Amino acid sequence: MLKEAIYHRPKNTFAYSYDNQTLHIRLKTKKEDVEQVSLVFGDPYIWEDGNWIFDKELMKKSGSSDLFDYWFIAIKPPYRRLRYGFELVSGAETLVYTEKGFLDHIATNDNAYYFVFPFLNSIDVFSYPKWVKDTVWYQIFPERFANSDPSIDPEGTLPWGSAEPERDNFFGGDLQGVIDHLSHLENLGINGIYFTPIFKAASNHKYDTIDYLEIDPQFGDKETFRKLVDECHKRGIKIMLDAVFNHCGFYFPQWQDVMEKGEKSKYKNWFHVREFPVKTEPQPNYDTFAFTPLMPKLNTENPEVREYLLETGRYWVREFGIDGWRLDVANEVDHAFWREFRKEIKAINPEVYILGEIWHDSMPWLHGDQFDAVMNYPFTNSALKYFAEDNWTASKFRNAITELLHMYPLNVNEAAFNLLDSHDTPRLLTICKDNKEKMKLLYVFQLSFTGTPCIYYGDEIGMTGGQDPGCRKCMEWDPDKQDTDIFETVKRLISLRKSVPAFGNNGLFEFVETSGENLLMYTKTFETSKLLFVMNPSSAPINAALPEGFRNRDLTNVFTGEIISLKDNELALDSYSFYILA
Amino acid sequence: MLKEAIYHRPKNTFAYSYDNQTLHIRLKTKKEDVEQVSLVFGDPYIWEDGNWIFDKELMKKSGSSDLFDYWFIAIKPPYRRLRYGFELVSGAETLVYTEKGFLDHIATNDNAYYFVFPFLNSIDVFSYPKWVKDTVWYQIFPERFANSDPSIDPEGTLPWGSAEPERDNFFGGDLQGVIDHLSHLENLGINGIYFTPIFKAASNHKYDTIDYLEIDPQFGDKETFRKLVDECHKRGIKIMLDAVFNHCGFYFPQWQDVMEKGEKSKYKNWFHVREFPVKTEPQPNYDTFAFTPLMPKLNTENPEVREYLLETGRYWVREFGIDGWRLDVANEVDHAFWREFRKEIKAINPEVYILGEIWHDSMPWLHGDQFDAVMNYPFTNSALKYFAEDNWTASKFRNAITELLHMYPLNVNEAAFNLLDSHDTPRLLTICKDNKEKMKLLYVFQLSFTGTPCIYYGDEIGMTGGQDPGCRKCMEWDPDKQDTDIFETVKRLISLRKSVPAFGNNGLFEFVETSGENLLMYTKTFETSKLLFVMNPSSAPINAALPEGFRNRDLTNVFTGEIISLKDNELALDSYSFYILA
Repeated sequence: MLKEAIYHRPKNTFAYSYDNQTLHIRLKTKKEDVEQVSLVFGDPYIWEDGNWIFDKELMKKSGSSDLFDYWFIAIKPPYRRLRYGFELVSGAETLVYTEKGFLDHIATNDNAYYFVFPFLNSIDVFSYPKWVKDTVWYQIFPERFANSDPSIDPEGTLPWGSAEPERDNFFGGDLQGVIDHLSHLENLGINGIYFTPIFKAASNHKYDTIDYLEIDPQFGDKETFRKLVDECHKRGIKIMLDAVFNHCGFYFPQWQDVMEKGEKSKYKNWFHVREFPVKTEPQPNYDTFAFTPLMPKLNTENPEVREYLLETGRYWVREFGIDGWRLDVANEVDHAFWREFRKEIKAINPEVYILGEIWHDSMPWLHGDQFDAVMNYPFTNSALKYFAEDNWTASKFRNAITELLHMYPLNVNEAAFNLLDSHDTPRLLTICKDNKEKMKLLYVFQLSFTGTPCIYYGDEIGMTGGQDPGCRKCMEWDPDKQDTDIFETVKRLISLRKSVPAFGNNGLFEFVETSGENLLMYTKTFETSKLLFVMNPSSAPINAALPEGFRNRDLTNVFTGEIISLKDNELALDSYSFYILA
Repeated sequence: MLKEAIYHRPKNTFAYSYDNQTLHIRLKTKKEDVEQVSLVFGDPYIWEDGNWIFDKELMKKSGSSDLFDYWFIAIKPPYRRLRYGFELVSGAETLVYTEKGFLDHIATNDNAYYFVFPFLNSIDVFSYPKWVKDTVWYQIFPERFANSDPSIDPEGTLPWGSAEPERDNFFGGDLQGVIDHLSHLENLGINGIYFTPIFKAASNHKYDTIDYLEIDPQFGDKETFRKLVDECHKRGIKIMLDAVFNHCGFYFPQWQDVMEKGEKSKYKNWFHVREFPVKTEPQPNYDTFAFTPLMPKLNTENPEVREYLLETGRYWVREFGIDGWRLDVANEVDHAFWREFRKEIKAINPEVYILGEIWHDSMPWLHGDQFDAVMNYPFTNSALKYFAEDNWTASKFRNAITELLHMYPLNVNEAAFNLLDSHDTPRLLTICKDNKEKMKLLYVFQLSFTGTPCIYYGDEIGMTGGQDPGCRKCMEWDPDKQDTDIFETVKRLISLRKSVPAFGNNGLFEFVETSGENLLMYTKTFETSKLLFVMNPSSAPINAALPEGFRNRDLTNVFTGEIISLKDNELALDSYSFYILA
C-alpha cells in the first residue's frame, strides 16, 4: 500500500461532528490501492488488564477521484469521545495507520499512538439554519428586475429593456417591482431571494456603498423594503441581503472626509492609508479592493469600523427581519471580524444564514465559528466544464465532484450555495451556446445535488447575456418572449426537490461508475427510497446499462410520471437527455 | 513524481502568516522524489494583456522524514495578498501543482487555478507574548517543594521527606516555602514558574477544585500569594497557574448541591447529568473526566458556568497579575469557550500566556484564536525514545522531530511548551535509568530546541521517582544530597540559551544528515552565527565527521570554553557525550 498517499487529520474535513451525537471519520488512500479499511476505535479511557479496549468496523468507500479513494464511517461514541486508528488491508498486507505513523498490528498497550476526537461538544458542531436545507434561491439584481415606481428613477433612466446593459446605464428597477412580481417567483417555486446590494451607492450594481444603513433611493425606502420582506415572508420566501464589508464606495462620507482632511480626518484609521496626502493616481496609495481607487479597503481591525459594520449587520436583522447575509469578498476580511459578526447576528436570530463569497477552498471559514456556507464556485466550475463546455469527460467530472464532496464535512456541503451563474459571469444559456437541452441538464444536476441551489433571475425564462454587464439585462416580462419550456422544466425540478425526499438535500448523493466518455449516472438515496439519474450531455445518443436495483423491473420516470419497461435493462438516451428513475 | 504524496492546503501548517508582513509557504512531497520546487506567485489582481503576472522563486528543503520531504519559503507580498502555485522539477519532468490539481505548465490565462492567501490581516496572525520566547520554565508541585509555614499544615502532615509520596499523604509544602527558596531558582537561571493547582481542593495534587477563587489554606492565603507574585516579578520570574475547567472536584459546592437536591438543584445544568437521581456507582450516570466519579465534567456551554470560569480566569490576572494560565484537559472543553477565554484574558493583559494541555496534534487550537501554545508531548515522546530509552536510531529521531516541526507553523513551534517529564510521568533521571550523562544530553537538546523548555522541580539536583505518586517526592534541600554536577550543567545550558542568540529560540534549528545508528548533529543559526551540536547518546564511542563550515579551522567548545583543534575534521565522542561547537 502506498503510505505516502494515506492521509487523515482530525477536526477538519477528515473527522468532524455531524450532529450532537455523531462523528464522521474519513480516510484518503491511493486510488485502487487498498481493498478494505476498518476503523479501530474505542473510548479513550476504557482499559482492561493494561489493554485499551477497542471495536473494529468496516468503512465504506465514499468516492474515488483521479488519484485517491475516500473512505467513510459515521459513528456515535456513547461518551461523546473517540480514540481511533485505521486498519488497511490489501491482499496479504495489513497496515495500521495512527497519529504517530504506521504500525504492523493493532497495538493496545498504549493508546497514545492513535488519533483522538477528544470530546463532542454540541456548541462546536457546525450548524446552519434548518430552513436552508430546503431552500431554492433566486438571485435578483434589483436595478434590472422590474421598475414599478418611475417616480424614483435616477436621472437618465432608460426605458425598460430599451438598450443593452452598460457599466453605467440605469433602467430603474426597484423594490416595488419585486413586490409586484412575487407571483412569478411563487409560480416558479423558489423560496429564498438573494438580492445583490440595495444600500445607498452610486453605481447601478451598488457594490460601492455610501450608506450601509439606508436603502438606495432609486430602489425605494425602508417602508417599501419592510413591505417586501413582509410579502415574501407571507409567501414562505426568505430574504438575503448582500453586504460589502471588505471595502466601501468612494463616496462613503468617512472616506470623503479622509480625502478632504487627510491626516487630520478623524476617520483616517478607518482605512489602510499608506501615506498622506492620499493619492488615487497613478496607483492608489491606500489599500483597495484589487487596485480600484474607487473601493477603499475598510480597516476592520479598527474597533470603530467593526462596530459600524456589526451594527449594520445587526440593524437589518433586528429591524427588518431579514433571513440571510451574503458577504462580499469575504476572504479578504479578517477571521476575527467574522467570528464577532456571527456571534452578534446569531444572538439576534440564530436562524439567519451567513454566506461568504469565497471562490476557493474555504475550510478555514467553515469550522462553525464564522460562516454557514460559501458560494460554491468549485461546483459551478465543474458543472459548467462538463455539461456546458464539453471540456470534460464524465470521469473527469466525477473526479472533481468527488474531490469537492470530500473537501468539506457533509453538513458544510448541505448548506453550500450552489450557483451556475450570477451577475459576475455570463448567463447560463449563453455559456451553453444557446443549447436549452444542455441548460436543462445543468438544472437537473444543480437541483438534485447536495447543497442549496440558486437560480439567476431571468435564466428561468431563457434570457441570455455575456460577461457583465451583458448578463445584467432587464428582466423580460413580455410573456411572448419568455421561454415557457425552460420555465416549466425548472418549475418541475424545484417541485420534485421539494416533494421527493431522495431528490432533495436529504438524499445521499453517490455516483454510479460508468464506462464511456460521456454517460453520467448517480443515485440519490433517502431511507429506503432511491432515485437513479441518467444523463447524456453529448450530441450523440448513448445506451446506458442500468445498475443493480434498477434492473429487471418496471421503472418510473419521475420527471414525466411515465412508466418505463426496458428490454435488456438498457436505456437509450437521446443527445442532451436525462432520466430520473425510481 | 509521485502526485499522491504532494500536499498543500492554505491557512494551516502549510500556509500561514508568520508576522504582519510575512507569509510562510510549505509543501510536502515524497522523500527524495523531487529535485527542485519553486513557488510561482503574484498578486491576485495584477494582470497584463489578459495574463496573470507572476514571479518564481526556489523553495528550500526544510526537512525530511521517513516518507516525505518538506519545502519552505518565506515571502512578503507587497499588498499583503498572494496567489500561488508550485513548480516541481525532477529530471526532465515538470509539474505545476495548484488548488485544482496538476498542470503541465504555468498557466496564466486564468489564475483561479492557483492557491490563494487572500489577505494578511494582522489581527489573524498567530502571536504569543514576547517574553515567552526567552523563558525557561520550572514546574512546581506545591505540596512537595518546601514547607515554610507548619501552622497551616493539613491534618496528618508527615515530616518533610520522611516517607515515600503516596496518593493521599501530605508533607505540607506551601507558598511561603517557594518564596523562601527563590534564590535556588534564580541561581539555576529559570525565569518562569508553572505551578500545578493551588486553589482550594481536597487532594494533595489539587486537581479536584472546590473553590476556583480561593488559595488552598494548606498553601497559604491570598496575601502570601500576592507576596509570591511580587517577589517573583522582582526577580524577572513569571508565574503561571493551572486551571481545571474541564471538570471540578467532587466537593465543589455546586456539585454537592446537585448530589443533595437532584433535579431541584439550581446547579443541575452546570454539569452533564444523564438522569436523576445522580449515581456514582457502579458507573457515574453523569459525564466525568475519564470515568472518575470524583471529577464531574462541567457544562461549559451553560452561560452561568462560562461566566464563573471566565471570571476565574480574569480574577487571578486582574487582581494578582499572574502571567500565564495552563489549562488542564483543554481539548475536552469546547472551542467556543476557549475563544471567549482568550478574548477576556487578553483584554486585561495581552501578555498573558495561554497554554493548553493537549497530548495530541493540536492544530485546531492553535490558529491564533484560542491558545498560545500546547504542552509539547510529541517532543517529549521523541526525545525520551531516542536519548533515554535507546529505542530509536538517530534517523528515526530526526524523522519524528522533522514531522513535529512541520506539524505546526514556526511561530507556534516557538511558543510550544517543551517538557521532558512532569508530575504525571516518571522523573527524567529515572527514565534514564539513573544515567546522568543521558539526562544531560536531554537537557542539551531541550534547551537548544525551538520552543520554551520546562524543568520539573528537583530534576536539576538529581531527584528520582517513578510514575506518580513516585515522581512527587519532597524536594531535597540538603546540599549534601543534591547533585551539583547536574545542577551546574543545567545552569550552564540555561545561561547559554539566554546569552547566545543562536542557542536560544531565535536560532533556526536544522538537522545535519549523518550516517550510523546513533550520531546526532544539528545546527542552530542566528544571522551570521552558527552553532553545531554533536551528540552521542550511545554506550560506544563514535567518530563524527564535521560538516562544511566546521572543517579546517579551530573550533570553540561553547559549553566549556575550550578551543579544539582537530585532525582530519573528525571529532571523537565518548559514550553519552556532546559538543556544542562554534
